[in-house]
Parts: sequence; C-alpha cells; structure tokens
Amino acid sequence: MKENIKDIARAAKAASNEMARASTDKKRDAILNMAVLLIENEELLIKENEKDLKQAREKGISEAMLDRLTLTESGIVAMADGLREVSALTDPVGEISHIRTRPNGIQVGRMRIPLGVIGIIYEARPNVTADAAGLCIMSGNVVILRGGSESIHSNRAVARLLQEGLKKAGLPKESVQLIQTTDRDAVLEMLQCEEEIDLIIPRGGEGLIRFVVENSKIPVIKHYKGVCHVFVDEGADLNKATDIAINSKAQRPGVCNAMETLLVHSKIASTFLPQVAGRFKKAGVELRGCKRSREIVSSMKEATEDDWFAEYLDLILAVKVVDSMDEAMGHIRTYGSLHTEAIITENHGRAMRFLREVNSSVVMVNASTRFSDGNQLGLGAEIGISTTKLHSFGPMGVEDLTTRKFIVLGEGQIRK
Amino acid sequence: MKENIKDIARAAKAASNEMARASTDKKRDAILNMAVLLIENEELLIKENEKDLKQAREKGISEAMLDRLTLTESGIVAMADGLREVSALTDPVGEISHIRTRPNGIQVGRMRIPLGVIGIIYEARPNVTADAAGLCIMSGNVVILRGGSESIHSNRAVARLLQEGLKKAGLPKESVQLIQTTDRDAVLEMLQCEEEIDLIIPRGGEGLIRFVVENSKIPVIKHYKGVCHVFVDEGADLNKATDIAINSKAQRPGVCNAMETLLVHSKIASTFLPQVAGRFKKAGVELRGCKRSREIVSSMKEATEDDWFAEYLDLILAVKVVDSMDEAMGHIRTYGSLHTEAIITENHGRAMRFLREVNSSVVMVNASTRFSDGNQLGLGAEIGISTTKLHSFGPMGVEDLTTRKFIVLGEGQIRK
Repeated sequence: MKENIKDIARAAKAASNEMARASTDKKRDAILNMAVLLIENEELLIKENEKDLKQAREKGISEAMLDRLTLTESGIVAMADGLREVSALTDPVGEISHIRTRPNGIQVGRMRIPLGVIGIIYEARPNVTADAAGLCIMSGNVVILRGGSESIHSNRAVARLLQEGLKKAGLPKESVQLIQTTDRDAVLEMLQCEEEIDLIIPRGGEGLIRFVVENSKIPVIKHYKGVCHVFVDEGADLNKATDIAINSKAQRPGVCNAMETLLVHSKIASTFLPQVAGRFKKAGVELRGCKRSREIVSSMKEATEDDWFAEYLDLILAVKVVDSMDEAMGHIRTYGSLHTEAIITENHGRAMRFLREVNSSVVMVNASTRFSDGNQLGLGAEIGISTTKLHSFGPMGVEDLTTRKFIVLGEGQIRK
Repeated sequence: MKENIKDIARAAKAASNEMARASTDKKRDAILNMAVLLIENEELLIKENEKDLKQAREKGISEAMLDRLTLTESGIVAMADGLREVSALTDPVGEISHIRTRPNGIQVGRMRIPLGVIGIIYEARPNVTADAAGLCIMSGNVVILRGGSESIHSNRAVARLLQEGLKKAGLPKESVQLIQTTDRDAVLEMLQCEEEIDLIIPRGGEGLIRFVVENSKIPVIKHYKGVCHVFVDEGADLNKATDIAINSKAQRPGVCNAMETLLVHSKIASTFLPQVAGRFKKAGVELRGCKRSREIVSSMKEATEDDWFAEYLDLILAVKVVDSMDEAMGHIRTYGSLHTEAIITENHGRAMRFLREVNSSVVMVNASTRFSDGNQLGLGAEIGISTTKLHSFGPMGVEDLTTRKFIVLGEGQIRK
C-alpha cells in the first residue's frame, strides 16, 4: 500500500477550490474543532509522542532535537491555544483594499485570495502539524504536510484529529493531508508537483532546507539559519543589556531566534563584559571571545573565524568588541543570516539608524531576540520564517499565505 | 572588449547599498533629469531607433513586433511622462506601518526596504529601458537591463541618458547598467549571479520567459502569456458589451492585455453576436467560433481546441457561447492564463460573484481588458506583470519592488 504522492497533490488541488470559497464561520469552526480534539486526546497524543521519543533516544539524537520533538501536556495546551488564536484572527480572504477612482472613473482596488495548495516539509517538531494546518485553513488554503520519520507517530495522531475537525465543520478532509512515507523519495516526488502545489515551506535543519531548494520546481520560502546578533551600544542601560543578552541566548538555546553573537561597544566593554560573563556562567553558557573580549574576561575561549558564522543552537556564545555602530553593522552584514538583530541603546538617533540601516528580517531596539516569532509578534501561530526578501520577509502568518489580485469596477469604460 | 557580466553584477551590488539609503529628493532629481534628457535628445533617439527598425524590417519581423519596437515622438513624450509620474509617487522606502503594541509593551511594526538588485531581461520595446529604470530607482533599487539585439541601438541611447540623469543627481551611475552583449550566453551568465542579483523580471515572448525560468538560480517574477477573456453575461448592456469587446480586442491587438476569447451567454447570443460581429468585421478582426456561435454568425471560421489556448496577439478572436456564468468561469479556469478577465453585466450579484471567484491577477466588471496595465491602474509605469501568485500578482509598480522587514521597539522586555 505505497502512497501515491501525485494523487495526494491532486486531491489537495481539488479541495482548494472549495476552501477558497469557504466562509469564515466554517473555517473557524474547523479550527476550533481541532483545538478541542487535541485537548480531548491529550493522553493519546503523549502516548504516541513517547513512541517517537523512545526511537529518538535509541538513535542518540541531540538534546536540541529532543527538545523540539517532545510533546508535553503544556505543549498540547499551547498547540490548542495557538489554533484558537488563529481562529480568532481576521479572515484575510476577500479583504478589499486600496480602492481608488482613476481619472476615467474606473475604480481600482485589491482583493486578497488564498495561494492555493501549500506544502510544508518539516522535521522533529510535531506542533508544526497543528500550527501549519490552522494557518493554512484560516487563509483558505489547503495543506500537504510531510513531517520527518522521527515524529511520525505524533504527526499521524495529530493529523487524524485535524481531519476530524474539518469533517465536523463540513469542509473537505483533504484540506489537511499528511504524507506518511518518510523517505526522501517522497519529498522529491512532492517537489515535482508544480501543477498542484503553489508554495513549499521547508522547516528544519539547513541540510533539509538546502535539499528542498535544490530539488524543487515549486517556489520555496525558507530560511537557512538564524545567526542572530545583539549589539550593546555605548549608550546602553547595562542592566537591560544584561537581561536581554541572557534571555536572548539562554531562555531556549535550541531555536533559530536565539542570539549567537554578542557585539559590545568598546567604550562600555570593560564594565559590561565582566557583569554579563558572570550571569552567563551561572546560566551554563560557554563564551568564545575575540582578542579584546578575552583581555577583559580571561576565562573566555578564543573565537575563530568559524564562530562568527556559527548557529550553535546550544549554550555557546561568540563575543566581539567593536569600536562603533558602523563596525557592528558591518559585522552583521558580513556574518549575519538576515534573521534577527537587536541594538541595546538609550540613544534615540542610533536606535533609529540601526532600525533603518540593518536590513535583516526582524530588527529590534531594547528587546530580546526571542520575540522574533509569529506568536510573539502578533501574527498568531507562525507558518515559518523567510530570510529571502520575495513575498515575505521574517515570521510569516495568515496574511503571508495569501496574495492580492486587482479588481476593477467600471461602467462601460474603454481605453482611448 | 568583451563585457564581464559578473563585474557588472558586482558593481550593481556595490551601488545598491548607497541607493537603499538615498533620500527621496535625490531619487526624484535623478528621475526628473532622465525625463528632461529624453525630451532634449528626441531626435537622437529617433535616429538610433531607426537603425533598429531598418534592421528589423530586413529580418522581416512581424507587425506586432515592429509595433513594440517603434519609438515615435509621442512615444518618447510618453516615456518622459511615465518617468515624471513615477517621480511624483510616494517613495515606498522607509514607510512604517502596522505598528501595534503587544500585551508585554513591545511595539511591533513593518518598514519597507528595497529588494536590492533587479535584473530585467526584455525584448523589443525600448520604452522598457526607461520605465524599468524609473521604477527601480524610485524604490531604492539598482537595475541591470538586458534588452534584445533588435533594440540595441535604441536601448544604448536611452541608457546613456539615464546614467547621465543619475550622475547629475549625485547618485552612482552603476544604479542603471545596460548589458550590451546581445547573445544568450550573456543572459545565462546573468542568471547565475545569485549572490548579487535579488530578482529577475523577464519581459517578452513566451520562449524568452521559459528560457529564463529554466536557467535562473535567482527568483523570477513573470507571466508567460495573456489569454484574456471577456464574458458577456445575460444581464449585460449590449451596447457597453460591444464597445468593450471591440476595444479589448482591436485597440492594440499586439499586447498581452488584449482579449483573446469572447464568452457569450446563450440567452443573449442571438442578439449580441450579429451586432458585435458587424463591428469586428469593420475593425478587420477574424472570428473563430464554437458550433453554436457559427449557427448565429455563419461567416465565422470554426474554432479548434487550440484556439481556446491561443494568445493571438493579432486581429483574431475566439468566440464561444456558454449556458451560464459557471460554465464561463470553468472555461477560464481550464484555458486561461491568470492574466485578466472581465464580466459585462448589469446584475450586481453576478458581478460580485465573478469578482470574488475568478482568481486571475486582474478581474474586471464592465471595463476593457486594455486597462490591465500599471499606468492605467494607477501604479505609475509598470515594471512587469506577474501571473504567479508569490510576491506580486498582476501589474507591478514601485511598491512591488520593495519588501517589508519587522521592526520591534522595546524598553528592555525579555521573554518569559
């Protein structure tokens, strides 16, 4: 009983016409049903997840990976809350905007429509299954999910509940389909379905994402990695700076919005570095510093060129002293990944210049890089993050899964 | 003295940092300088264009192609007017929108930034050279232009004037560069410069566009063809319908927003078809009809399956009688190119349903398909048309050459 990926894609495409026209009420009902079903089946989900965790431990996967794979009771509540938050969002489909009357009297505007069929290819995190489905359904799209082998039991259990939620709301269950074959051939087949699938979003490690980009005939929105920087300016409040640095690195080191390099202005380095190094030590963070950092905090290891490019996803941090904001921005341009950068400063002019001139997908003043996340930024659950500038840049929510067509209202006008 | 394409791309990338920060005033100055220089050098431009036209006539190219290639006095005035219109647009760069305060007090918004370096690959129309440059400069981007061999003299003359306009405004002349090598190898080299070029926009025949899509490592925004439909509903005002049908087909048949298939509701076909057929005959349009159309107007040729897919770009029109709006929308879904479709009707409900359910890039009620154009829709000169849904859908103006990053303003917030 080998799965036929092309058939799955065709069924998705057929369902997408109905989904594009589905009322907001029906889409909301489906998503709320899903939330209720997840909570009601908490025990089942945890049992299925344990099968995945057992397998993963036997394979000896990393702590970061295990963290992403684990489905706890509070994780399930968070999934359901995420769905409820998405169901409460304004339905973007059908929104008419920018209506203007042209000199000849035609009225020109834009109307939002779904993209169609979205393929999500992901690893490890079973919560992606529910998040992705909720956002795709709310935006009138249809989704094909292809999770990794490591979370197949959890994904199957979640996907079954999501389909039940759709059916109960009178929407086609093919609006959420999970590909059960977990080898890479299934991914390759999926990436050839350019007639049926409108967009591919890969979520996972750099290896997976590069594999998808190289093999896809379908447009891909992706980010390879998150090498996020915090720049502590000479005008920083050093207590704020310390709290933000610790939080950005250590609150959850295994995710892409964690800080990987700390840039410190030379004018405050000798005060700030010893203070923050003590806190990092307590948090179990290993520091790897440039020469000037190590002259101030001698316990730091020496950073190599590779450290400036590194996405550790772990309790390790690269530290560099710079002489100016321009040097900091230059470092970010050279080594950054266009993901998230923050400046810590009380100086208005430099805050504004940093905001304007650093063209990463999320740029912050006096806040933790950990806020670079669809939920935290107010999009509801996020479908992914884009660090390429086309279509979307940064965390993507429900609106990023739509496009706008032009609408023209005339009264018989013709072109002279 | 062979051109080095990679060097051109690198020079563009270097200029793009300066352009991203350029003030609105400087960008406006540059574009207005360009407009003045085009008018001042009208004679020169027409002389250079005549070299191209002579060459083209010797090669025996089609009338549609000659029409696109020709630079008349009024064409030059239109180019200059287009530039002036673009220079008067609101500068999209730096625009901050959607600022909202999250429950924890961080303020989250979006800021528009340029895409970076845009590559335009086009054929025939020398006016693209000025239009593209104006839009790219106004949106803070840098452009690399690669026109076809058939318009090389015109393009060179125009590009020289554009660079002069930039220099006079104190902006780097590398912000507009024309690739002078006209063989396909130059295009191939350009399409490999993924580190330097952010977006490729091909404009021209389907062959050129498919060549670009298949060979590009850089994201491409394109449309293959425009198979535009006009559906004359049973509730149509038949005089408006006739005027719109004639205008959509015959006002300028050689362009992508001309109508290629006319769909007529069976309830009004016997009144409408004889009336419109007479007008089409006067306009020199050959009609190719379905069986039912030919029963009403016997002089029509018989349409084959190929005719429903055809982009004639000529004085030929396919005609089909349908029994309902659903049948018309089904025909459009099957044979259309997602470019532009219009309904002619006085019925409000059907007008609204057509607008909502036909998901082509431009959907119209009671207006000529010939309005499907950036200038006519109020975008200023257009950089191209997208019939793929990612990033932009439909005619693209200055805003479509930008993206939005997230900005976050905090006061020391960290994530719990």
